[in-house]
Amino acid sequence: MPIVAFASDHAGVAFKAMLIEEARGLGHQVIDLGPNSEASVDYPDYGARLADAIADGRASFGVAICGSGIGISIAANRNPAVRAALCTSGLMARLARQHNDANVLALGSRIIGPDTARDCLSEFLAASFAGGRHAGRVAKLTPGYEENPQ
Amino acid sequence: MPIVAFASDHAGVAFKAMLIEEARGLGHQVIDLGPNSEASVDYPDYGARLADAIADGRASFGVAICGSGIGISIAANRNPAVRAALCTSGLMARLARQHNDANVLALGSRIIGPDTARDCLSEFLAASFAGGRHAGRVAKLTPGYEENPQ
Repeated sequence: MPIVAFASDHAGVAFKAMLIEEARGLGHQVIDLGPNSEASVDYPDYGARLADAIADGRASFGVAICGSGIGISIAANRNPAVRAALCTSGLMARLARQHNDANVLALGSRIIGPDTARDCLSEFLAASFAGGRHAGRVAKLTPGYEENPQ
Repeated sequence: MPIVAFASDHAGVAFKAMLIEEARGLGHQVIDLGPNSEASVDYPDYGARLADAIADGRASFGVAICGSGIGISIAANRNPAVRAALCTSGLMARLARQHNDANVLALGSRIIGPDTARDCLSEFLAASFAGGRHAGRVAKLTPGYEENPQ
């Protein structure tokens, strides 16, 4: 089972804890990159920290959470090793894996509810990249791209 | 009124035409970066084309559309001049401007309906960056960042 890293800003701490439990329940090893309190932090710092964990191979997948999911998804996508998908439904999370070989799921803790967030996570972790016509497109997003081994 | 550039993949061509009309109705000048048929293209090419128009100042804002919005949002965010927000509601689009000073609105033509897409566009174009505590965070996303003049 792939290792999943989690990072958030202060607005995402409670969601992060909930989704870490969900990922463990699905059998995944988890890395918690913080933060671990609701003291104010800057989402770009934690988006970059998550991206580093993907880029250096500590984790195969990541989950990035802020209030809207927007800021941390932009931050994570600055790293060419990351394909971060901001999702508001399980359908989007599944498509992110199937069509974009996304390796980071970004979520907005003030936008979606906890059950939708859990659905996004389980769809994201259960789905596989479809390859085929999608592979050439994904390669254009990421220099040196190889399909994520699972 | 700021100039707005539009780009999509084949799945977003009809949405793009609809939203170009909407933007013109709101009084904006528009640049259509294509494509102009539903022949298959690769979203990274059009995401990069849109990002270039933002980076070189041809447009202040961009709208990027593919089937899910995911692929083209990743592609656009590869350019450090871009802050692309994948939105599924007017609330997200407003927050993207207010908190993240987003300059690209990304939409999924197979995810949201036309009225929601129009609502996203009008909220995005009407909202302003809130600055304050958000400015330091946005600066961390973009080397040399200055607030988007409107």
